[in-house]
Amino acid sequence: MLDKSKRVLIVGLGLLGGRYAIGLTKAGFAVDAINRSEGPIRYALDEGYIQRGATHDFEPLIREAGYVVFGLYPTTLLDWVEQYGHLFRPGCLITDVSGVKTGLVDKVQALLPEGVEFIGSHPMAGKEVSGVQNAHMVDFAPANFIVTPTERNTQAGVDFAWELAETLGFGHITTLTPAEHDHMIGYVSQLTHAIAVSLMCAEDNGSLAEYTGDSFRDLTRIARINDKMWAELFLWNKDHLIGQIDQFTATLNTLRQHLVEDDRDSLEAMFRLSTQRRAVFDKKQ
Amino acid sequence: MLDKSKRVLIVGLGLLGGRYAIGLTKAGFAVDAINRSEGPIRYALDEGYIQRGATHDFEPLIREAGYVVFGLYPTTLLDWVEQYGHLFRPGCLITDVSGVKTGLVDKVQALLPEGVEFIGSHPMAGKEVSGVQNAHMVDFAPANFIVTPTERNTQAGVDFAWELAETLGFGHITTLTPAEHDHMIGYVSQLTHAIAVSLMCAEDNGSLAEYTGDSFRDLTRIARINDKMWAELFLWNKDHLIGQIDQFTATLNTLRQHLVEDDRDSLEAMFRLSTQRRAVFDKKQ
Repeated sequence: MLDKSKRVLIVGLGLLGGRYAIGLTKAGFAVDAINRSEGPIRYALDEGYIQRGATHDFEPLIREAGYVVFGLYPTTLLDWVEQYGHLFRPGCLITDVSGVKTGLVDKVQALLPEGVEFIGSHPMAGKEVSGVQNAHMVDFAPANFIVTPTERNTQAGVDFAWELAETLGFGHITTLTPAEHDHMIGYVSQLTHAIAVSLMCAEDNGSLAEYTGDSFRDLTRIARINDKMWAELFLWNKDHLIGQIDQFTATLNTLRQHLVEDDRDSLEAMFRLSTQRRAVFDKKQ
Repeated sequence: MLDKSKRVLIVGLGLLGGRYAIGLTKAGFAVDAINRSEGPIRYALDEGYIQRGATHDFEPLIREAGYVVFGLYPTTLLDWVEQYGHLFRPGCLITDVSGVKTGLVDKVQALLPEGVEFIGSHPMAGKEVSGVQNAHMVDFAPANFIVTPTERNTQAGVDFAWELAETLGFGHITTLTPAEHDHMIGYVSQLTHAIAVSLMCAEDNGSLAEYTGDSFRDLTRIARINDKMWAELFLWNKDHLIGQIDQFTATLNTLRQHLVEDDRDSLEAMFRLSTQRRAVFDKKQ
């Protein structure tokens, strides 16, 4: 079990960092936070999400931390670790919330001093909103939590991430390699966002809004997207994502070819395959 | 206003034909139905949806009908009108529920005898279920109803379709030409179904079901699809749909190219455009 005598430090107090602070404070931990701007720190102090917060002169918070959670975008995370990673105390256990893992987890691990362990993890609980002021609306209970250990991780490190997820109330916790994680997330999250964005950008469709039913709204709900965060995620995972876009485009082109050739049987066969595969998802919901 | 002394005839007692029968009987009309198989007729008689029903020897029902609704697929509808269209009484007003209009409305109009008016219309209220036994679950209040008149239609014909929609409780009634309708429906309905089906068919993704969050489920909900009906709709509207698939694929390919070139600015610009356009849909919801 996690040790409540250790202080928790959240670095990056956004939507997820804020939600971790809420959950861990409620669970009885002493939580501190570091953030670039003052507003979120002030908000979290006022709401009782954290005990202490800082935008600068935060070395004491780092040195006193037993558990650390990075709530930063991957590029910012790497920069931060390069600059401040040497300040962590040996024995410190660290994780993150990043939506990509390959090229991030191994680099962070290589940058940290001996005895400081970083274990990658990904709480799959994004929302269309952002910021610590919306953190209380994030529900972890139905969400997936993925732990992505490497050869450098110890059982204690894996246990830390796993128990953190349990403490925060995640409904489904699993372990994947960073590469498996990035393949999976490319397919189930980034490809779907690429499709939704393309559907909105393909045509100036505002005049069609009055006619759209549930299907169009379902497909494009996620087209309202945080531009900075998703550009970051897409580019970090571009190798997987490009391959998956190609695979999807090839399939859509097959369907198109059935139309060109008036091939009703092949069209119906695709519809049956799709229906059969989608049914599996309803069962597992 | 619709004349309640005229009998209503439903030809094709499926999900929508059944729902029309329920609504019109409730509104005080005498409703009859013709269907190829016996089961739906029996069910609708038992439930009190209709007064009379027939699978054959239905000439009297046709001759007594003042208002008619075709609840058939386009190809079946055309066949039926070729075979029985001459039996309608002059003054009879007829509409349909088909999801495609070009190449259907004009042909039906040309087949019918002098004085019998066909006005195309489309209740955009499909569901994942089918059959008259599910008809009571269809909710017309939030749905669009599109009337698609041609040069052959009279004001009386347009009024009939419009008042039928009002009687059935549709929340939003508009008029489009058959071509405008098919362009619109290709984009907001058929293209989205083509994308959802392709996403499910692109990869044997059952093993990923445990990781999928709302975005993947949203995009693929409509991938459970009635194979016969959607092959019919896709092929009838293939000219619009192929063009829209091409436009969508070109846009997705642009996004892909931004990834290949690590062009963060252009990616973010697409995300902002998509966010801005999608916001219009939320306002109009």
